[in-house]
Amino acid sequence: MKNQIPYKIYLNETELPKKWLNLRAFMNKKPAPLLNPATLKPMTKEELSSVFCTELVNQELDETTPYIEIPKEIREFYKMYRPAPLVRAYCLEKALGTPAKIYYKFEGNNTSGSHKLNSAIAQAYYAKKQGLKGVTTETGAGQWGTALSMACSYFGLDCKVFMVKCSYEQKPFRREVMRTYGAFVTPSPSNTTNVGRKILEEFPETTGSLGCAISEAVEAAVTSDGYRYVLGSVLNQVLLHQSVIGIETKTAMDKYGIKPDTIIGCAGGGSNLGGLIAPFMVEKLQGKENYQIIAVEPASCPSLTRGKYVYDFCDTGKVCPMTKMYTLGSGFIPSANHAGGLRYHGMASTLSELYDQGLMEARAVEQTEVFKAAEQFARVEGILPAPESSHAIRVAIDEALKCKKTGEEKTILFGLTGTGYFDMVAYQKFHDGEMSDYIPTDEDLQKGFDGIPKINL
Amino acid sequence: MKNQIPYKIYLNETELPKKWLNLRAFMNKKPAPLLNPATLKPMTKEELSSVFCTELVNQELDETTPYIEIPKEIREFYKMYRPAPLVRAYCLEKALGTPAKIYYKFEGNNTSGSHKLNSAIAQAYYAKKQGLKGVTTETGAGQWGTALSMACSYFGLDCKVFMVKCSYEQKPFRREVMRTYGAFVTPSPSNTTNVGRKILEEFPETTGSLGCAISEAVEAAVTSDGYRYVLGSVLNQVLLHQSVIGIETKTAMDKYGIKPDTIIGCAGGGSNLGGLIAPFMVEKLQGKENYQIIAVEPASCPSLTRGKYVYDFCDTGKVCPMTKMYTLGSGFIPSANHAGGLRYHGMASTLSELYDQGLMEARAVEQTEVFKAAEQFARVEGILPAPESSHAIRVAIDEALKCKKTGEEKTILFGLTGTGYFDMVAYQKFHDGEMSDYIPTDEDLQKGFDGIPKINL
Repeated sequence: MKNQIPYKIYLNETELPKKWLNLRAFMNKKPAPLLNPATLKPMTKEELSSVFCTELVNQELDETTPYIEIPKEIREFYKMYRPAPLVRAYCLEKALGTPAKIYYKFEGNNTSGSHKLNSAIAQAYYAKKQGLKGVTTETGAGQWGTALSMACSYFGLDCKVFMVKCSYEQKPFRREVMRTYGAFVTPSPSNTTNVGRKILEEFPETTGSLGCAISEAVEAAVTSDGYRYVLGSVLNQVLLHQSVIGIETKTAMDKYGIKPDTIIGCAGGGSNLGGLIAPFMVEKLQGKENYQIIAVEPASCPSLTRGKYVYDFCDTGKVCPMTKMYTLGSGFIPSANHAGGLRYHGMASTLSELYDQGLMEARAVEQTEVFKAAEQFARVEGILPAPESSHAIRVAIDEALKCKKTGEEKTILFGLTGTGYFDMVAYQKFHDGEMSDYIPTDEDLQKGFDGIPKINL
Repeated sequence: MKNQIPYKIYLNETELPKKWLNLRAFMNKKPAPLLNPATLKPMTKEELSSVFCTELVNQELDETTPYIEIPKEIREFYKMYRPAPLVRAYCLEKALGTPAKIYYKFEGNNTSGSHKLNSAIAQAYYAKKQGLKGVTTETGAGQWGTALSMACSYFGLDCKVFMVKCSYEQKPFRREVMRTYGAFVTPSPSNTTNVGRKILEEFPETTGSLGCAISEAVEAAVTSDGYRYVLGSVLNQVLLHQSVIGIETKTAMDKYGIKPDTIIGCAGGGSNLGGLIAPFMVEKLQGKENYQIIAVEPASCPSLTRGKYVYDFCDTGKVCPMTKMYTLGSGFIPSANHAGGLRYHGMASTLSELYDQGLMEARAVEQTEVFKAAEQFARVEGILPAPESSHAIRVAIDEALKCKKTGEEKTILFGLTGTGYFDMVAYQKFHDGEMSDYIPTDEDLQKGFDGIPKINL
């Protein structure tokens, strides 16, 4: 069915995906397994189940089932804010004067303001189904914590969020949204966990990091009855849930006979990118299509473009399983001048493996250029983008401007993961000319690399 | 066409309204005309044209044309965020255990975060068409200023916003969004206008009011070449533009064979309510239907429920035309403990007249009850509502709970005008138990009434 292409393509509720797509099942060479840091052997289902919900452990370890059914309860929740629109950026194209056709999948039309809700509701559902009292988690910029708060509120679960201290202080409103949904929010590192106390002792002035907040949240889960730990990115299960983004996008594009040449997503831990590209990467793995796929990361936290592809710890306290991934080392903390998210030191193992196989590219961009793109986009497309999402906007604009030079009528698709309503401090810095860029030196990176465990496998 | 009713009813872009609905044209007894405060005679087109854009003056004075075509350029912009979804509040119904069917029209899915954009883009379009350099306006809570900034940015117009000082200081992020769209934002009262200086002289400690900011914005417009003043509510032209809300709502309801029994909207100046009810009120005026229509206002600013229906000034500086409306007096300023908008001292003349004719009801609600409703709604429906919108939620919940008692399966429709992302200070007060209610005493109101001009007409 080919029709004239509207500004926004909304699928019907009946077209909502009924199954998630498990990208690993389509890969010949699979991502390396999670390892028990003590034994260096692959984590077993039993070992993982003390930390994660049982059904989520099954999903985490399942590398063969290509499609996994989305439970009805989760689909009902998805209906409250999905299908998300696929937008043709007519106004941006016009402003750029490019022959390129630009599309973006907008995931910000829900109160959490980002795509994180797609996995939060799934994880909360399985926790509820298992009869748990609640879940613990970490949050950096706050999108994941907000999403999980909403999801837990919906299913009547307790939600304990360890929020990276600098965000807790700089983003009181994010915290307040979580409280609106009934969550308990603690600045991390805190005195409420052993690992938090230890980190505070060693670094009393620390403003926290994601890796540190993860350690605290895991400890809080395993030391409380009826709690498990949930994570908003990096894990296979998260990429699985986020595949709804890509499936909807591809369904909408197929419906109108659109085929992207270039697919662009921002990448911190990889949840959005992994979800957006899922069905497209399947076709690429099957040799049917040859999409150009670009992961965009901050130049200040360049795990793909400058990291090492090795086994590393996922958290500062080294309590989590070890993962083979592109990493800057679990001790790496982005420069304080870095605004917004995308601060994690590693990248999802599936994306790391695909990148290593040459199936996708990566670009690192500097934040003032990112905010320039954000403001240009906001003014013409109306939506105020999150700093994270604006990394993808930056590269989409760059690619569209290349088309302007060459005359190519490329079709560019990017993921607009969320809105920037809680990032106005960063926008203000940008407006006031107080935003700077910082690219870590090789010496800076070496400090992080030094913390990577030396193991031979 | 009757189908199963989805969570969200999205019309197609082709179903976007092509005409605005001019409610006055359907009224036998029209609202009273605007008066020149000096002559007490109806304002002429010429007099109004020094303040407002010519085409908007035509719309302001036109009380006979039932439908006015929406220019193509405005419809193109509408496509970026419209049609807005009509949502069936299945989750809220379930949480309340009510047999009532609850629907809401959600206008918050755009960066300005509210319905105000519907009129902002229209007013900016006519200003551009007239060859103006820019426009001036006032904003209170900030939604209108944000919407106008977006609209002006789209058409390349200057935008000067006088923002009520207490909001300017308490909502720096709203200000920052306006700056993102290139607007110039000045706290009001300011030293940049005569009227501002005069007010500051008389009340040096004032935190400002909408009436005062209007006076400054009007002065700034009439004393600058190529500028006109635009207003986000109260005026007939604004209600006209906002009729897209109601038309879309009715189209969607008709499509699924739904007929509301009760229609509820929050009312400050009346722009949202006037827009939402427009096509329904037409049927009521024609005697075809007998919808119950309820305007909801804050108990701390009760213009309909406790005001007088008389000619009054629209602004503190008394530079605007006089309007016959339900009013608390142009000197009335809501108690400082009142969070959020809906602070205007008067009500749109059209709605005032309809209310006076008994065609709609009004209810005043207290803010702690409003925030209770807001939080309940957020937790089950996912959307974080603006305090303004939550006035309508409060009454919708109250009506649904009545149905629970009586067993009536009423269909309740309300307008969800916007999101509360920039209102987290108020939410925080509510969470911390620091929010209080204040209902003005008769003596308090008398002070406002004393400022109403004594004229006999």
